[in-house]
Amino acid sequence: MLNQKYLNLGVRRSDIRELFEYAKALKAEIGEENVFDFSLGNPSIAPPNSVNESIKSMVDSVNATTLHGYTSAQGDFNVRKAISDSIKQKFDFFMPTDNIYMTCGAAASLTITLCALCQAGDTVLGFKPYFPEYAVFTQTSGATFIPVDGDKGLDIDLVNFEKSINKSVKAVIINSPNNPSGKIYSLEKLNALAQILCNKSKELGHPIYLISDEPYREISYGKEVPFIPAIYDNTIVCYSFSKSLSLPGERIGYIAVSPKAYDSQNVYYAIMGAGRALGYVCAPSLFQRVIANNLFAVAAVELYQKNRDALCDGLKKLGYTFINPDGAFYLLLKAPDGNGKNLSDLAKKHNIIMPSGESFGAPEYVRISYCVSYDTIINSMPAFKTLLEEYK
Amino acid sequence: MLNQKYLNLGVRRSDIRELFEYAKALKAEIGEENVFDFSLGNPSIAPPNSVNESIKSMVDSVNATTLHGYTSAQGDFNVRKAISDSIKQKFDFFMPTDNIYMTCGAAASLTITLCALCQAGDTVLGFKPYFPEYAVFTQTSGATFIPVDGDKGLDIDLVNFEKSINKSVKAVIINSPNNPSGKIYSLEKLNALAQILCNKSKELGHPIYLISDEPYREISYGKEVPFIPAIYDNTIVCYSFSKSLSLPGERIGYIAVSPKAYDSQNVYYAIMGAGRALGYVCAPSLFQRVIANNLFAVAAVELYQKNRDALCDGLKKLGYTFINPDGAFYLLLKAPDGNGKNLSDLAKKHNIIMPSGESFGAPEYVRISYCVSYDTIINSMPAFKTLLEEYK
Repeated sequence: MLNQKYLNLGVRRSDIRELFEYAKALKAEIGEENVFDFSLGNPSIAPPNSVNESIKSMVDSVNATTLHGYTSAQGDFNVRKAISDSIKQKFDFFMPTDNIYMTCGAAASLTITLCALCQAGDTVLGFKPYFPEYAVFTQTSGATFIPVDGDKGLDIDLVNFEKSINKSVKAVIINSPNNPSGKIYSLEKLNALAQILCNKSKELGHPIYLISDEPYREISYGKEVPFIPAIYDNTIVCYSFSKSLSLPGERIGYIAVSPKAYDSQNVYYAIMGAGRALGYVCAPSLFQRVIANNLFAVAAVELYQKNRDALCDGLKKLGYTFINPDGAFYLLLKAPDGNGKNLSDLAKKHNIIMPSGESFGAPEYVRISYCVSYDTIINSMPAFKTLLEEYK
Repeated sequence: MLNQKYLNLGVRRSDIRELFEYAKALKAEIGEENVFDFSLGNPSIAPPNSVNESIKSMVDSVNATTLHGYTSAQGDFNVRKAISDSIKQKFDFFMPTDNIYMTCGAAASLTITLCALCQAGDTVLGFKPYFPEYAVFTQTSGATFIPVDGDKGLDIDLVNFEKSINKSVKAVIINSPNNPSGKIYSLEKLNALAQILCNKSKELGHPIYLISDEPYREISYGKEVPFIPAIYDNTIVCYSFSKSLSLPGERIGYIAVSPKAYDSQNVYYAIMGAGRALGYVCAPSLFQRVIANNLFAVAAVELYQKNRDALCDGLKKLGYTFINPDGAFYLLLKAPDGNGKNLSDLAKKHNIIMPSGESFGAPEYVRISYCVSYDTIINSMPAFKTLLEEYK
């Protein structure tokens, strides 16, 4: 009677959420300090002070009816203009104000973009390892999500990618820095990818859009994060301030349609229509203005880097194998016997909570979210040691 | 190539938005004070002071990582508990905390609920006159929206309603106080409606859910607004704080599934699943907490009442015919020749901006949104006078 697709999605929480709830119960039982909870990608560092300062100063200075009133469906003009200017300044790329559409965060950006571009019968490609909700958001549009196998280092495998493109492929989702691997794809790799997309678009007679999902753009530990619209014309950026400003609960982000994208005006109209149909009237108005004042601010990501370094050093010394993360706050740890599910289960006995890489398309791994306190990382090392000993 | 359904929705703005843009251009040309813009339902009165006070006090006292962090997908537990308590206190009705799901406003509430309940082949009924976006949100779920003709006073016509129910009807949307008529349906009428729904549910062998869209609940000028879950068990309330607290841009509201509704636990799960699939991760976290502190606060709605009284008095004296509004901030004005479209067009010549009732299912009327300054109403009367003279 009810919509079974949505009922199933609601009943079956994601594996990660399931594990998070397990960790919560365990903490209540044996004490928070005895549980090493690496399950969720929930920012552990505070927003920059300028965020709360912006909130208070706007509440004090802006007319309340305006401040909390509807903005246009695309978002406040001045906010979009500020984003356009910041993209020019950061990447020397002209992204017109009217190509930017404010959203309630990255999940909204992706769902709206996928609905605008796709319909039943279409295929959307992604790259393993990938964020599992891509499959859910793609299904909402009626299309099917197919993740392409990566290479041994879990980087993009261009040969596999090229082979996967057929006439049903309408869009490709790319995510760099990557959740769950922390990989930042190199400019060289992205250029080659763009070339394949150009050739295939020509060959198939329709554009293949590249959806660049960028919630972790600002979280890089030194490596440059190439700006995709400068590499491939048919690009739509889905940006979120959740991680850069540590505001995941406020649901604020944007979609930017490259002005060089094929039929970009209509893509933008279809995004407006999809946003309307999915029930998004406008992005939260106060936070639109808050982020416009904080486009060059970033939370203290050096704390994530400190965590990464401690985690990588510790795990390496213990003899673990893993993918070295360039950015974001995730690490894929390889299971000694190649079975991530087993490692995740075994780890629970040692009070280490980390989901299997299975749902990310990396079944030989578990994912460690290291957006936790530094102490959690240091204190977890003895448990990681005894965990590894189980394999000997 | 793009999704044509969404492209069309994006290209073709609603008639109301179209007219609003016309008014904006006209104001720039001839001066704001010379345009009587009754096009949009955008609250004109400020939020209660307690809203901005709550924002500042929370920013000062709550840990920023928590304040702006993810809440659970259903919404923060304490926020939902506060809403549950307020419903108990206001309506003496037990709405469990776990039957409440926080949303990004009324449009999100409706879209999520419709997707949870419906699929292709289903029908959703509404009552003329109705908010035109109901058709858009219903289409997103795959179902079809069919509005039922009202009686001569634009109240619910129970005979027409009963005749419209067939086995494809999965849900009915009701909106009281009503946009665009301002009508508040009486307890007597609602009881009779509930009886029809009970009988038909039994006859057809499946529950018919009643979706109560309540953005205007607090805007009543004396008449009681009956609480629907106390009248009909299979009720799902879609509430929004946009109008009661004058926060339309902040996108905050909730869905409450009556615990007496058939299969209520699964309805709630399907709502969680639909919310996830439509890209809603959680409702904005700061404003979840702000509204929890303001559940008994209301913006100065007596100002809307003052507007209504001035508008009704003025129009009556001039000789216009209209539906007297009990609540909300809309009035349906009857076209002297029964053609609302003509009246809307003619009015533009007199710089009065009001959309035809056509898209609301009331083609003999135009809709006046009187959430404007009091002066706009008073100053518009000479223009209304000359407008009416055109018909003589």
